[in-house]
Amino acid sequence: MPNVISADWKLQMSSFARQTINPHRLMVETSKVFPNPEKKVITLQLGDPTIGNFSHPPEAVEAIHNALNKDTFSYYPTNGIQEAREAVADYVYKNDGTLIDADDVIITSGGSSSLELCFFLLANPGENILIPTPSFNYKTWLHGPNIVSKTYKLDPTKQWEIDLDHLESQIDSKTKAILVNNVGNPCGNSLSKNNILEVIAIAERYRLPIISDDIYEHFVFPGVQYYSVAGLSKNVPVLSCSGLTKRFIMPGIRLGWIVIHDRSNAFKEIRRGFTQLLGRNFGPNCSIQKALPGILKNTPQTFFDDTVSRVQKLALTAFNLVKDIRGLVPIEPNGAFYMMVKIELEHFPKFKNDIEFVEALTEEQSVKAFPGPCFDFPGYFRFVLTVPMDKLIEACERIKEFCADHFIDENECQKLIIEVPEKQEVSNMKMVEITVT
Amino acid sequence: MPNVISADWKLQMSSFARQTINPHRLMVETSKVFPNPEKKVITLQLGDPTIGNFSHPPEAVEAIHNALNKDTFSYYPTNGIQEAREAVADYVYKNDGTLIDADDVIITSGGSSSLELCFFLLANPGENILIPTPSFNYKTWLHGPNIVSKTYKLDPTKQWEIDLDHLESQIDSKTKAILVNNVGNPCGNSLSKNNILEVIAIAERYRLPIISDDIYEHFVFPGVQYYSVAGLSKNVPVLSCSGLTKRFIMPGIRLGWIVIHDRSNAFKEIRRGFTQLLGRNFGPNCSIQKALPGILKNTPQTFFDDTVSRVQKLALTAFNLVKDIRGLVPIEPNGAFYMMVKIELEHFPKFKNDIEFVEALTEEQSVKAFPGPCFDFPGYFRFVLTVPMDKLIEACERIKEFCADHFIDENECQKLIIEVPEKQEVSNMKMVEITVT
Repeated sequence: MPNVISADWKLQMSSFARQTINPHRLMVETSKVFPNPEKKVITLQLGDPTIGNFSHPPEAVEAIHNALNKDTFSYYPTNGIQEAREAVADYVYKNDGTLIDADDVIITSGGSSSLELCFFLLANPGENILIPTPSFNYKTWLHGPNIVSKTYKLDPTKQWEIDLDHLESQIDSKTKAILVNNVGNPCGNSLSKNNILEVIAIAERYRLPIISDDIYEHFVFPGVQYYSVAGLSKNVPVLSCSGLTKRFIMPGIRLGWIVIHDRSNAFKEIRRGFTQLLGRNFGPNCSIQKALPGILKNTPQTFFDDTVSRVQKLALTAFNLVKDIRGLVPIEPNGAFYMMVKIELEHFPKFKNDIEFVEALTEEQSVKAFPGPCFDFPGYFRFVLTVPMDKLIEACERIKEFCADHFIDENECQKLIIEVPEKQEVSNMKMVEITVT
Repeated sequence: MPNVISADWKLQMSSFARQTINPHRLMVETSKVFPNPEKKVITLQLGDPTIGNFSHPPEAVEAIHNALNKDTFSYYPTNGIQEAREAVADYVYKNDGTLIDADDVIITSGGSSSLELCFFLLANPGENILIPTPSFNYKTWLHGPNIVSKTYKLDPTKQWEIDLDHLESQIDSKTKAILVNNVGNPCGNSLSKNNILEVIAIAERYRLPIISDDIYEHFVFPGVQYYSVAGLSKNVPVLSCSGLTKRFIMPGIRLGWIVIHDRSNAFKEIRRGFTQLLGRNFGPNCSIQKALPGILKNTPQTFFDDTVSRVQKLALTAFNLVKDIRGLVPIEPNGAFYMMVKIELEHFPKFKNDIEFVEALTEEQSVKAFPGPCFDFPGYFRFVLTVPMDKLIEACERIKEFCADHFIDENECQKLIIEVPEKQEVSNMKMVEITVT
């Protein structure tokens, strides 16, 4: 029995909760920055194309209706039902030419769930996983259980290719995996075959498995060749995380998968580890699992082709409009539905950093975007391209007006700059209510 | 860079995965015990009434169909959509008379997800949470992140009421919460008002919040009065975890919730902790969330009444049949859909423990059940009552035959007993492939 009984209720959150920060969701859900009431809000924040004019394939809904009619709501096997896993194996073979078995597939509750499982499985507290910068908020899943994130650079001057020397320099004796994200978020970059092969060669030298975040797989603009990490790996084991979220435009369906691409017979114990971990949750909704074969088989290729064509048009429009804005430098994407835009902060001395820039953009122009620190890449902001064309153009015009209002040319700048931009933590942002202590 | 590059691929699972053991799922999915090929399998294992003749309310499917037609598959707020949270608040008020707000509700991907969130949030590695014995496999979620489980006893001689002295004796300076499960699994016991009030009084003295696993809430047989922990608590904060799994007979739908019953203004920081943790996953399937108000509002009271009446008949039948089997002592349940059966192992000297007993029952009679160690309570097995009546009777007859085949009376026993039954870890069971090192 404890010696002292507390007088007051002082319940504190665990370090796990305290260290779990999803900057994207916190900004969307707890922001204290208010848009200009005279302008309708245009949000370029969450990577959710359903907010724009994009929608799921009708075949998907039909498949779910059918599954609902036949099904009772039973518990399913924790790795997913056989027919769903077979359907993913067929889908991977059809799209990638990589032969896998249904037993190599785990059905999950979406991409976030896939990533969480891989991280929990591969690294102990104090060990590290290499993630790109800029990148999606992988730290959200790593830092709670005290897994260390070490970042390797993507090079904005070379279409965001992986900086191989930097990647290799980040590996240490506690590194447990390299995470590669292709096609990439937030850059909308599709990695070249050569770049991927070089990463695989490094992974092989250091005997590191690759976690391949493939949630944007095949999502490249017409004329761009897509290469999958698993498809190119001969000897390096790869855990490929994908799902229906992006390519099938169904983020809310919460249906993803992990494909275990074993190579060099490296994943024997890892497979057992998955079996153990999967006992924590009982897989995604049963009707959606039952519908998965229909969704994967019946969605026509034209659906994907139409989607990427439309996104490409939006991307080109935004790129051409933003590149003419003084003080901004957009990096042209070739896939996914994002564009990174560099802010030449030296021309905006009013704003100490990209966070202040983006917050003022919301307050003055009612345009919302995620600033660089959300992607561990200060000095930029991310532009989501899947808004309706008229809103996209309007957003660009408002950004232009905003920049014109605050742009100071070089000569003026010299006099004004007092502080240099510095790296900001998301937790310090006005947009985020929650502070980390 | 590391000094040494490994020659071989030796990828190991993390301690998190190694320590995560769900004995129920591992037994169902990886068992190496084979039933008698001459007898059709009757499974009394998973608490999934859909395996029997029980099914969801038709109103639920209609609500999901309707939601699918209207909805796109957007990301939803991480705590769930407003109308789903409001519907849960209404449901709690209607059923319990407890007034809560939509902001006190978090929509989750089922009961397991609710529990995981509470555990991650309340305890650090090395700290402990008190759980009952026998109990559902709460350790599955606790041990991965090194949260310690300390058990307090339920008393089989007093309808499984909580042993208050034992509970209090288990509290130490690292205790962060008391978990109460009412109606209880695996005992099918509904706690008395007085017993709950006593637990609340202890929690108040030690300033410990209660995690109330209410997934079987209101699931009591006709004539039995159900009391909720939150409904009885004046000053002790309670996190109530429930969902559609059991009462609505939809385990595969993966839809649960946590109700934050704040008392004494104790949960201020805990609420922020939930917000942070929820950034890890993005909530359950959107259509199911959209359908939740319809499911909760349109399911008629007769659905629940019919279900518990049918379960009560099954429970009485099983109880009466098993109580006449020499060597077994069933404990009569008054709710949920389980019954614990004591094995008088002194009369079955062939079996060293309940695990061997249950394994032989499968091999000889093709009746599958979970042995006591699955519930941290050796010497018993759990009987799932929601199988069709004819199968239930057949299972009881086979168990009777099995016991008759192996029963040795007391005089004979004295000569035969060599080893006393000892506590067995599930990880050592033949049924489970995975061994913990």
